[in-house]
Amino acid sequence: MSSPENFADRLIQNIKLKNSCVVVGLDPRLSEIPTNIQLSSTRKHGQTFNAAFKCILDFNKHVIDIVAMHAVAVKPQIAFYEQYGSFGIKALEKTVKYAKKCGLIVILDAKRNDIGSTAEAYSNGYLGRVPLFENNSVKSYDVDAITVNPYLGSDGISPFVRNSNIYGTGIFVLVRTSNPSAQEIQDIECETERLYKKVGRYVYLWGSGTEGYNNYRSVGAVVGATYPDEAKDLRELMPNSFFLVPGYGVQGASAEDIVHCFNKDGLGAIINSSRGIIFAYKDPHWKEQYGERNFEQAIESAVIKMKKEINLTRAKKTSVNS
Amino acid sequence: MSSPENFADRLIQNIKLKNSCVVVGLDPRLSEIPTNIQLSSTRKHGQTFNAAFKCILDFNKHVIDIVAMHAVAVKPQIAFYEQYGSFGIKALEKTVKYAKKCGLIVILDAKRNDIGSTAEAYSNGYLGRVPLFENNSVKSYDVDAITVNPYLGSDGISPFVRNSNIYGTGIFVLVRTSNPSAQEIQDIECETERLYKKVGRYVYLWGSGTEGYNNYRSVGAVVGATYPDEAKDLRELMPNSFFLVPGYGVQGASAEDIVHCFNKDGLGAIINSSRGIIFAYKDPHWKEQYGERNFEQAIESAVIKMKKEINLTRAKKTSVNS
Repeated sequence: MSSPENFADRLIQNIKLKNSCVVVGLDPRLSEIPTNIQLSSTRKHGQTFNAAFKCILDFNKHVIDIVAMHAVAVKPQIAFYEQYGSFGIKALEKTVKYAKKCGLIVILDAKRNDIGSTAEAYSNGYLGRVPLFENNSVKSYDVDAITVNPYLGSDGISPFVRNSNIYGTGIFVLVRTSNPSAQEIQDIECETERLYKKVGRYVYLWGSGTEGYNNYRSVGAVVGATYPDEAKDLRELMPNSFFLVPGYGVQGASAEDIVHCFNKDGLGAIINSSRGIIFAYKDPHWKEQYGERNFEQAIESAVIKMKKEINLTRAKKTSVNS
Repeated sequence: MSSPENFADRLIQNIKLKNSCVVVGLDPRLSEIPTNIQLSSTRKHGQTFNAAFKCILDFNKHVIDIVAMHAVAVKPQIAFYEQYGSFGIKALEKTVKYAKKCGLIVILDAKRNDIGSTAEAYSNGYLGRVPLFENNSVKSYDVDAITVNPYLGSDGISPFVRNSNIYGTGIFVLVRTSNPSAQEIQDIECETERLYKKVGRYVYLWGSGTEGYNNYRSVGAVVGATYPDEAKDLRELMPNSFFLVPGYGVQGASAEDIVHCFNKDGLGAIINSSRGIIFAYKDPHWKEQYGERNFEQAIESAVIKMKKEINLTRAKKTSVNS
């Protein structure tokens, strides 16, 4: 079966193929990476950004090899790469390529946004083609989707929507983030409702026309698992938008908290866990059983456990409503 | 005189030294760069990202050499570098180093934000020190300040404020952006006032305690020149915050529009122009006089003209209020 041309369709195809709504966050904190991998980088390259590049890429490949069967997507958090300058970005570029080759959808967590002409540069870099010399253009990062910030309004969003339509890529706009202080701005009372709902309405408007043949849209929303009531509201407000749901696991949300993120068809949400999977060997739940030496088995057990938990939740949703 | 340790103080020292509040935006669009510079890159490196790297860096050095005397700061817009992957970031890194060596303050326009633990990675990369192996840490981009997005609330801001205090760096938080659709989100009526004002109040709160000996803060605000009434409101609300003011020139704002961004002391604002300076040779105002061959003279004339216009505006402000 050939790959569909709409991002939401490609996502759904991969969800069904793997029977999984799990997204694994690739947030490679050097100090948490198993010592052996750290040492094999520093032995050759010392305390350098080049060693950081090798170490991150090496670790990510281990993670990807294990989760490729069980996760629908990976979500590299660009901050953990970008902080190491061009070396970090090189690690990201190679990670993206490797993950795609392994059949994973790549959602870059970058939370980018800017005024129109600048948003276009971001959008070309991540979702489209960047201009070279003499009107030539080429693909650059070539990810499947990117997270985007709404604060600048539609000017900063439409270049991403445009490329999503042309290249079969997608975006997830921050609506309700998972962090504690999300409340400060996102819960400000606006007219008759809180800000995050107004933003949700905008995002739904911005995504109009990006539906694939499954009727889901390529413009989705970031909706934190740590705010289940808000997720329920947003599910009603944006029925055929995909939710990218952070906050599961280490950030405190359980499978119970994410039930409202799904639709009756068991679709409409993908759930991210980062540290809880990739550094599972440090998690009290797996530490004793595996330890650092068996970090790969810890990753595998953690991702399979998460997949099962989430599929149980999805099953509840579909059975209640059927 | 040694360099003060507070970002606002360093900024003020440089404003006084150069008698200038001009910020030159380094947004290197390849197709706008003079043909000779493009050709000398592609002749050696073909249609590659490496050629883009050489071309951008070469052009930026020309710009920096000219504006260093007349501008207080440069503001690289990271999107125009980042889109070329690790090659683009390398061009950014080298541009930052060169600009600092030439006595310019570097404000990176990146509009970053995320949940706390991720914002820390951004903050370490741009304003502090990034972790390497065995508890070592080093400086990475080492810019003077960065623009930051407020949508996630204080979690996403405090890691930047912390590093600003430790390393004498600073941030400018988006309060009122310069683009037309800024209105969609930032003008939503919240309780008794519009959202941008609420955000302004938060930013003022977040910046408390970052004052230098001039009493200005290292936590500033982005306030678009294209919204003069809003700038006036915010000036009252945030009396000792520095405003980074985009929107001057090509985006449509005049010297008249920015008068309210300044305080009575003639300080409190720095004004950015990007295309209007670096690609002045294409501007109808300078095109005939200079043309592509004399792009350097066009840059020089444009930056000097802008400096004078803004200093006239500052003078009005100080005389009206004295």
